Amino acid sequence: MIVVLFMMPITLPKIRRKESVRELYDVVIVGAGAAGVSAAIYSSRRNLRTLVIDKFGVGGKLLEAGLIENYPGFTGILGPELAQLFEKHMTKFGAEFLVDEVVNINKFNGMFIVDLASGNSVKSRVVIYCGGAEHRKLNVPGEDKFLGRGVSYCATCDGFFFKDKIVGVVGGGDTAVSYALYLSDICKLVYLIHRRRAFRAEDILVEKLKEKDNVEFIIPYIVTEIRGEGKVESILVKNRENDAVMELKLDGLFIAIGYKPNINALLSLKPETFGAGYLKVDERMRTSVEGLYAAGDITGFEKQLVVAAAQGAIAALSAAEYVRHGKWK
Amino acid sequence: MIVVLFMMPITLPKIRRKESVRELYDVVIVGAGAAGVSAAIYSSRRNLRTLVIDKFGVGGKLLEAGLIENYPGFTGILGPELAQLFEKHMTKFGAEFLVDEVVNINKFNGMFIVDLASGNSVKSRVVIYCGGAEHRKLNVPGEDKFLGRGVSYCATCDGFFFKDKIVGVVGGGDTAVSYALYLSDICKLVYLIHRRRAFRAEDILVEKLKEKDNVEFIIPYIVTEIRGEGKVESILVKNRENDAVMELKLDGLFIAIGYKPNINALLSLKPETFGAGYLKVDERMRTSVEGLYAAGDITGFEKQLVVAAAQGAIAALSAAEYVRHGKWK
Repeated sequence: MIVVLFMMPITLPKIRRKESVRELYDVVIVGAGAAGVSAAIYSSRRNLRTLVIDKFGVGGKLLEAGLIENYPGFTGILGPELAQLFEKHMTKFGAEFLVDEVVNINKFNGMFIVDLASGNSVKSRVVIYCGGAEHRKLNVPGEDKFLGRGVSYCATCDGFFFKDKIVGVVGGGDTAVSYALYLSDICKLVYLIHRRRAFRAEDILVEKLKEKDNVEFIIPYIVTEIRGEGKVESILVKNRENDAVMELKLDGLFIAIGYKPNINALLSLKPETFGAGYLKVDERMRTSVEGLYAAGDITGFEKQLVVAAAQGAIAALSAAEYVRHGKWK
Repeated sequence: MIVVLFMMPITLPKIRRKESVRELYDVVIVGAGAAGVSAAIYSSRRNLRTLVIDKFGVGGKLLEAGLIENYPGFTGILGPELAQLFEKHMTKFGAEFLVDEVVNINKFNGMFIVDLASGNSVKSRVVIYCGGAEHRKLNVPGEDKFLGRGVSYCATCDGFFFKDKIVGVVGGGDTAVSYALYLSDICKLVYLIHRRRAFRAEDILVEKLKEKDNVEFIIPYIVTEIRGEGKVESILVKNRENDAVMELKLDGLFIAIGYKPNINALLSLKPETFGAGYLKVDERMRTSVEGLYAAGDITGFEKQLVVAAAQGAIAALSAAEYVRHGKWK
């Protein structure tokens, strides 16, 4: 028994891993990124019986983020460090946490049934869906084949494997430019490949990147193929204006070209969506399905940590009113 | 010279106190609470020339707040401590800070003129108004007379003056119940006077308060008079259901019954308002006046720290687009 205790992860002291079938909760929160964590804090502080479910752990995209400088109050903190603070905060007021994957959510007699990959399921009066959005793929030859052998979607996870090597980063948003900045500090050379001449990224980031003498901007180019034998050795890129083609020798390619909303578990409920499959919410974070709230990247709003956290808080406050008074609108 | 340097407040190392008249900024942010701080971080990271103006300093209501437990990432931090972190963060990316009072804002030829109590004024292409909302008064005899002599709107500022004494708290929201909780730890007896039987406050707070044996709930009662000679000695309270009147002997009265939006400086611009004078904004934090954004308590949305911070971020991101592209809608 004591051995088991010592084998539990010491950073997760207050987390209970639930095994129970069809337990009844007031609020089930799907996803433990910033939105889910904040929803759990607010929901449990309203004394609602709250369960958070995430297949990976607490932190969401923070787990693969580098230095965070724009979450007010933290002038600079590494993503995984902030994720640890979130984890501690999430369960402080009684919210439970379960590591499992939500595969389907249905609704019977006004009650949500949340089915899990483990075969278990839980019942809840309210669901706050914070399923986030996943990395979008280039869909070019070699991308899947070389995943983990030079192709990565997370520079802060895998960057260090490419110390003193040559890498490429694909994309023009905050993530891509942040990746390139980070990689320029540890790699010999960084290509930033972007399909447009303008960047969506924060100007301050682009300017910082332009000051780096080991960063080459490859614009306006797209990647058409990833080549190698056993691992990435080069990429083909094509100029979008004049169709010029180049082969760039490199050891790694980091792809940061956007997101795809994680909405599969909700398909049975048929919530209203827009764009790439983002959930439509109103200002109280209500979806088109009674009792179903959403917060964070899945709502297709600004993908900012502090915005996700605020949306989680608002969803939980709305849900608390709904659980107490039963009035949806 | 060196003497002057040492006399500067050591907690404000990066803050420049501007004296210049009619300087041109991209963004002027009025108010340095959570919304203004966050707007400044985002605006300066977008490389916009940014000035924050506040008549008191950085932190807004945090400066009078007790323990903050619901700002995700900080499991528990005192308001003034978080305000210090905000202050450091606000100016980290180049935003300037000015301690002055904004008395009027006008618009000429597409440019805002922000007039200050000092007699100076500044010009800006965009204004993000985070003026907040002030404490609402009871408007009963004795309230003004005994302000600072027993009457207070800030328990965490003044509570300690009433150590081992008897105090009252008026209100039923989070602020009132938090005040009562805090005061119950240092005072001999705390009356919580609330006009309704139900509380708007978080249940977890109300339950904690009910566990305290030195807290008396006076509900549903209103305060009709504050009495004393030179300082508060008692209050008259009246039962709202049966008109019963009691006189409660006490040494201090903390009033926490809501807020009044600080909108006077905007009257020339005639922005659309609602309710008690809150600014109407859309989801991009635009008011009805082109170039004028608002964030935080002034928007009349959830008065939560993390929500104000998110609104500030959104306002700044919207403003950055407007400054760059000139398109309002």
